[in-house]
Amino acid sequence: MNGRWETSRLEAFSDGVLAIAITLLVLEISVDPAGYDHLWRALGNEWPSYLAYVTSFLTIGGVWLAHHALFSRLRLVDSVLLRLNLLLLMVVAFLPFPTALIAEALRAGDGERAAVVVYGVTSGVIELLMASANRYVARNPDLLAEGASKPRLEPRRGGLRATLYGLGLLLGLLLFPRLAAFGYFVVAALAVLSPRGEVRLTLGSFR
Amino acid sequence: MNGRWETSRLEAFSDGVLAIAITLLVLEISVDPAGYDHLWRALGNEWPSYLAYVTSFLTIGGVWLAHHALFSRLRLVDSVLLRLNLLLLMVVAFLPFPTALIAEALRAGDGERAAVVVYGVTSGVIELLMASANRYVARNPDLLAEGASKPRLEPRRGGLRATLYGLGLLLGLLLFPRLAAFGYFVVAALAVLSPRGEVRLTLGSFR
Amino acid sequence: MNGRWETSRLEAFSDGVLAIAITLLVLEISVDPAGYDHLWRALGNEWPSYLAYVTSFLTIGGVWLAHHALFSRLRLVDSVLLRLNLLLLMVVAFLPFPTALIAEALRAGDGERAAVVVYGVTSGVIELLMASANRYVARNPDLLAEGASKPRLEPRRGGLRATLYGLGLLLGLLLFPRLAAFGYFVVAALAVLSPRGEVRLTLGSFR
Amino acid sequence: MNGRWETSRLEAFSDGVLAIAITLLVLEISVDPAGYDHLWRALGNEWPSYLAYVTSFLTIGGVWLAHHALFSRLRLVDSVLLRLNLLLLMVVAFLPFPTALIAEALRAGDGERAAVVVYGVTSGVIELLMASANRYVARNPDLLAEGASKPRLEPRRGGLRATLYGLGLLLGLLLFPRLAAFGYFVVAALAVLSPRGEVRLTLGSFR
Repeated sequence: MNGRWETSRLEAFSDGVLAIAITLLVLEISVDPAGYDHLWRALGNEWPSYLAYVTSFLTIGGVWLAHHALFSRLRLVDSVLLRLNLLLLMVVAFLPFPTALIAEALRAGDGERAAVVVYGVTSGVIELLMASANRYVARNPDLLAEGASKPRLEPRRGGLRATLYGLGLLLGLLLFPRLAAFGYFVVAALAVLSPRGEVRLTLGSFR
Repeated sequence: MNGRWETSRLEAFSDGVLAIAITLLVLEISVDPAGYDHLWRALGNEWPSYLAYVTSFLTIGGVWLAHHALFSRLRLVDSVLLRLNLLLLMVVAFLPFPTALIAEALRAGDGERAAVVVYGVTSGVIELLMASANRYVARNPDLLAEGASKPRLEPRRGGLRATLYGLGLLLGLLLFPRLAAFGYFVVAALAVLSPRGEVRLTLGSFR
Repeated sequence: MNGRWETSRLEAFSDGVLAIAITLLVLEISVDPAGYDHLWRALGNEWPSYLAYVTSFLTIGGVWLAHHALFSRLRLVDSVLLRLNLLLLMVVAFLPFPTALIAEALRAGDGERAAVVVYGVTSGVIELLMASANRYVARNPDLLAEGASKPRLEPRRGGLRATLYGLGLLLGLLLFPRLAAFGYFVVAALAVLSPRGEVRLTLGSFR
Repeated sequence: MNGRWETSRLEAFSDGVLAIAITLLVLEISVDPAGYDHLWRALGNEWPSYLAYVTSFLTIGGVWLAHHALFSRLRLVDSVLLRLNLLLLMVVAFLPFPTALIAEALRAGDGERAAVVVYGVTSGVIELLMASANRYVARNPDLLAEGASKPRLEPRRGGLRATLYGLGLLLGLLLFPRLAAFGYFVVAALAVLSPRGEVRLTLGSFR
């Protein structure tokens, strides 16, 4: 319990930033005043906003799950991890901008390629930073709480997702930007849905 | 106390998202610069914004009450409940959009039907997800803290409210969209005002 | 410590709403793109925004101090206090709207009277709700933690501040709206600066 | 542990305000709808927004680190420190405005001098308030938790950073506003990167 105490305010601050970033995403969705004449059609035209909202919500939700799984294992946080975490939060808090960008580009049918690349790079950097934090903890086991297992699986998965973002990025650049946008959604959904066992493991370490 | 520990960061994150979504609602209310000449009248014309603000505030406040009543009973959270909770937060964090939509539609007198339906569907889905979380816990009593009662009543009430939202939706579609907007307010107010006994029960389980 | 446990999630949610409302206030301040030619002058013309920002920040900060002073004394929260608290948060979360209103009205020189009245009524209702919460706890001493003193002084001060807001309101209605805006600032500053002894008392009850 | 209890709600509220202010910064970044025709170029023209985002993120992140280092040492908070903290939060929560100002001024090429001065003054005041809080605690050791060291180093560093902001301000006023903007970034980055030993010290006081 002593170990958690020392990470508690870091978790509170991180939870705050993640919760705010995830909730600000909705501000990107709006209907033009002129659209109220034919609101059903205007609402239909907003599909890129809904797609971008759900994708980014799942992305940040996945970061929260991974963040929780990592920090709940720690006894204390050193200054490297503290700054790595701040960098991670900086990129996650930036995500509402690429989200608005990709939604607007898909809606306008202009600049889709650039928007898809910017979104993919941002998501990929988030994955890499999360994977780096996991790897740093795995190499500094003195940070771990007694009896907690090393975060072995996450680096691989993070690397896998970063690779998938990289592929989506290439796909977006060279061929079909719209397909890449749906690809991001699938990757984000997998990140939230897949790591079942791991969550149980985390909770188990405090039993 | 051990049980609460394991749900504590989930509660902190959920509280964060609910608190932010509830506070962002005010951003939807504004007066057009041209309205300052006759500000009393312009403020009067904003009544749909006030109605939508209070309704959505009560809706999210009711979710918070129900969420608190459920999670304070738990010893731990499994991966299904974790994802169900994330889905619930995704729809609640989306609510500011239908709120702005219904306010603008009622003000403009255009697109009221569509706005009322979208608002009703969103609120109904929130109720169904909250009821699903309650039902899941009722069927998995190993998640409960020792001595905590099963959440028996909530599923019924949630189902009742979902039905009421469904009726409002029908009413909105077929007949009087404005009446449906006031109906949502009544349903949300009831959700916050009714479950007195239950709150006492929750606190009681820790005494 | 057991008593605090039962109020902890209510405090966390309330802190969240208060912290977000206080931080959203800054969104009201902005300079028109045309103003960048003569930015010093444009920044000077924004004085009503700065005044409104500081006044509302102090108002919400004062609510937080009073809220903390009250809830840190409690052992548990009943369903009446729970709903009274939700109502208080609803009005506090609404404050960014009157804040933007008064800033814009003072800047435009139009609608000052209406804006001052709306701001005064909102602030007065906040004071009355805070005073009601204090009075409710004073009349239900079973909610108090062992050894905690009843919140005697706050109702009087809250009533005093509500009266001052009432006077400001009258002043605004009948005579000088601008003077009333400065009056609100003085009242809010006093609310934050005055209750020294009380804060010590609160902390003292846990020593 | 008793000492932390008494500062816990202050830390929660402060964390909330800092987390929200840091996450609202992204709202300042946006691309004009007309820019989607040539999105890469439009994204390139947004460089002042990225610079301002990163600088302010690091500034608030640095405040959070210093805030954490200070308050984790305390046994309790008196009424002076409570109000000093509120004042600090008021200025930090204001930072999104100068951030938007400096980004827009650098982009427009108009009003750069004024924007740079306003940003520098705001950042300098933040440093001075943080240094004042440290100095106040150093002079009132009865606030400290048992065994916690006095915050000796921070006042000097805060003063140093305030001086650097002052120099940047002068530089901005007299010579090159753009250079000053990059100077702010360097100062903010140093504030986050430098105080390694101090963080270890803080955690050490609870071991």
